[in-house]
Amino acid sequence: MKIRRADRLVDMTHYLLEHPRELVSLNFFAERYETAKSSISEDLAIVRRVYKTRGTGDLKTYPGAAGGVYYTPLMGQEEAEEFVKGICEAVSDESRVLPGGYVYLSDLLGRPDVLRATGRLLTTQYANQEIDAVMTAATKGIPLAQAVANELNVPFVIVRDDAKVTEGSMISVNYLTGSSKRVEKMALSKRSLRSGARVLIVDDFMKAGGTVQGMQTLVREFGGEVVGTAVFAEGRSNVRLIEDYTSLLHIDTSLDGSSSIKVSDGNYLERIYKK
Amino acid sequence: MKIRRADRLVDMTHYLLEHPRELVSLNFFAERYETAKSSISEDLAIVRRVYKTRGTGDLKTYPGAAGGVYYTPLMGQEEAEEFVKGICEAVSDESRVLPGGYVYLSDLLGRPDVLRATGRLLTTQYANQEIDAVMTAATKGIPLAQAVANELNVPFVIVRDDAKVTEGSMISVNYLTGSSKRVEKMALSKRSLRSGARVLIVDDFMKAGGTVQGMQTLVREFGGEVVGTAVFAEGRSNVRLIEDYTSLLHIDTSLDGSSSIKVSDGNYLERIYKK
Repeated sequence: MKIRRADRLVDMTHYLLEHPRELVSLNFFAERYETAKSSISEDLAIVRRVYKTRGTGDLKTYPGAAGGVYYTPLMGQEEAEEFVKGICEAVSDESRVLPGGYVYLSDLLGRPDVLRATGRLLTTQYANQEIDAVMTAATKGIPLAQAVANELNVPFVIVRDDAKVTEGSMISVNYLTGSSKRVEKMALSKRSLRSGARVLIVDDFMKAGGTVQGMQTLVREFGGEVVGTAVFAEGRSNVRLIEDYTSLLHIDTSLDGSSSIKVSDGNYLERIYKK
Repeated sequence: MKIRRADRLVDMTHYLLEHPRELVSLNFFAERYETAKSSISEDLAIVRRVYKTRGTGDLKTYPGAAGGVYYTPLMGQEEAEEFVKGICEAVSDESRVLPGGYVYLSDLLGRPDVLRATGRLLTTQYANQEIDAVMTAATKGIPLAQAVANELNVPFVIVRDDAKVTEGSMISVNYLTGSSKRVEKMALSKRSLRSGARVLIVDDFMKAGGTVQGMQTLVREFGGEVVGTAVFAEGRSNVRLIEDYTSLLHIDTSLDGSSSIKVSDGNYLERIYKK
């Protein structure tokens, strides 16, 4: 049964949102809706126009037999600035400061709306780059990694600080925590990453960057390549073990037991939208 | 500027997908598109028709000044059966069996497509129930909890086996692991759950159910109420500490070192679609 344009647009929007960064052939839609490819092209032009106006994504159409449509989720500058501003305000709250200058962020990193927006924002930087997997360290990085992987439509893998019976053979590396100079260990299941994989590293919080550096080593141990490193928040640190990263927030707390907290933009907005 | 129906349908579909189980007033859409509410109602009828045909969700419209539209993600029986069958086949693989009869599932639980579908499937059972939060135990339950919370549009909270410096004050409980009869401890940040919260417990794998029982105790310690318990897979167990749960898969492996594995449907499909 031929399906009307209005119905096609609803279904197509839904379908593309669930299949980001994946080439969908026009034939697939033509068969799904029993409709000529020329009509499908017109439909896609409408979807593209709406996404462009809202700044929420880009739709590219590739002609030819092997062609199709490719949807890339994006966040426009205005929405990005507003989102980061909102997060800054939510974090600038003295009741979040814990003994030792740690900051409570688990509520934000457990909110689907925050995670969805963060995922779309962090993938904007990698709109034109091929990524095969997202890597993070257990426990608090997981929700972010999943949110980013969801927009990239690639798997995410979880690095752990111990070997677990449910992970099978693991490859482990030692790394130096940047702040306290302790030697720690992290491990990843051997079967979770293939050789040659292009990996995006994601984490919730970075101080000196020891954990991130450990993950970079681990990617290389697997014969993979680090495409980039994105963290939700960076803290104050005297040493910085890695140079090439982006952060949404910069959080500054004191170690002297006071609950003062200063939150400002990280380097993400500057790096992505203003270059 | 007035916006055309075709464009409205694309944007509205996108908007509703990002705001499930939330009452959106018709005025909101009327203002967003500078369009009469009567046209918005016609748009929504189209969206409802498509979702109903595909079995991917339900759209309810409530009339009146305080009314609006409410989108509930669902998975129809046919899609659910096909999905569970696919997962069963993927898990029925002797190379997944690890020493001790454990089963490697981390690849599936790191795939956005599997997680999205699992989230939509598991929330179908709770289409008409109020849920305030999803709870899971670190580490492997987190991706599932996030996927379910995303469809329910509520926060998820992570129970841990130790107190972390980034979680602030925590409430802990002791619990008995069902299989080995050891006493373990689990803890949740005090600020992560409000009193009276209606909580859905989600986990990746359940044997005797000790962890789930511990989480039930924890919910009660917070003055909350357990709405239900949903696990991805249940394993064979001589004891079963909890009765009321649903599982997508039943996985049977042997403890004698052989790598045989038997995977069948859990009780979910039977409970939800065939009663």
